[in-house]
Amino acid sequence: MSHTRHIHHQNGGDSVGPSLSRQRAPGAGLVSDRYYDDFKVGERFVSGGMTMTEAGIIEFARQWDPQPFHTDVEFARKWSFGGLIASGLHTMAVTLKLWLEQGVFRACSLGSPGIGEVQFPRPVRPADTLRVVTDIVELRLSASRPDRGIARIRQVTINQRGEQVMEQETTVFLKRRPVMAANLAG
Amino acid sequence: MSHTRHIHHQNGGDSVGPSLSRQRAPGAGLVSDRYYDDFKVGERFVSGGMTMTEAGIIEFARQWDPQPFHTDVEFARKWSFGGLIASGLHTMAVTLKLWLEQGVFRACSLGSPGIGEVQFPRPVRPADTLRVVTDIVELRLSASRPDRGIARIRQVTINQRGEQVMEQETTVFLKRRPVMAANLAG
Repeated sequence: MSHTRHIHHQNGGDSVGPSLSRQRAPGAGLVSDRYYDDFKVGERFVSGGMTMTEAGIIEFARQWDPQPFHTDVEFARKWSFGGLIASGLHTMAVTLKLWLEQGVFRACSLGSPGIGEVQFPRPVRPADTLRVVTDIVELRLSASRPDRGIARIRQVTINQRGEQVMEQETTVFLKRRPVMAANLAG
Repeated sequence: MSHTRHIHHQNGGDSVGPSLSRQRAPGAGLVSDRYYDDFKVGERFVSGGMTMTEAGIIEFARQWDPQPFHTDVEFARKWSFGGLIASGLHTMAVTLKLWLEQGVFRACSLGSPGIGEVQFPRPVRPADTLRVVTDIVELRLSASRPDRGIARIRQVTINQRGEQVMEQETTVFLKRRPVMAANLAG
């Protein structure tokens, strides 16, 4: 179930504006712009799915992680995982893509200073369909910048059997709702 | 300075074999195959450089991290970093690529169960040339598998001014030298 629909309509009034930012996201018509102040600890967002293909796994790995268990089907078949597995970085990339397609932080993301411990408890193989479950685990205002807050999110990437293939925690800087920031400044 | 040259010649005798694995790595003629037993805590490996381009930053971000500060030069110019910056995941990908091109773990890598905390202390911009400094920070034998060891490596990615743009620690499973593993088994 997705919590991203019908939250509320917030014009924002920042320089990007909702109509422009809506153009940027796939399926944007379903999602309203949210700011730091609109999130609650414990909220959960479940992404759409994406199916990994042998071609996609090999192409990604050829470019960024050219190790034979990611690029060579014959090598991988005789190897300890008994078949081709995706680069962990590829799983991270798909996780990020699926998360961004939800558009949850689209209006308010100010980037990330880093990623917490990333775990790959199970291999990702061709034909696996991945989905990302994102929980808001911490929210706090920035001490130095009144226009922003800091969110800590936990993301678990699962396959079609519900098995966990990746887990990570990420810190993201989020814009406050313009009206909130303006009140504080005044 | 690279420590990857002229270490020693080790035939190995595993199913891949040195000639095949040499074909896989760029510049492989300079690098000898190393196994878990050949590394020491404190060893350092410095990669070659790779220059980030505006086109490369936008192309990567369009595919995996389509946020406007990574894909839209005009938006990014007015934004807090004052110009286009690379996706953190792109910097991770370049780091992995540069590290693998060194071939240090080519003969012995058995993959990674995860990545430690990843930090992006400074933005990466078009025309930045990145380089990766890898330190072996921990080596221990696997308790459950006599044919492998576990290495913890710290990687710092720097730009052309020597400024740190990324830092991470990764755990990697490494094959023991076949002769060592055979002695233990015997």
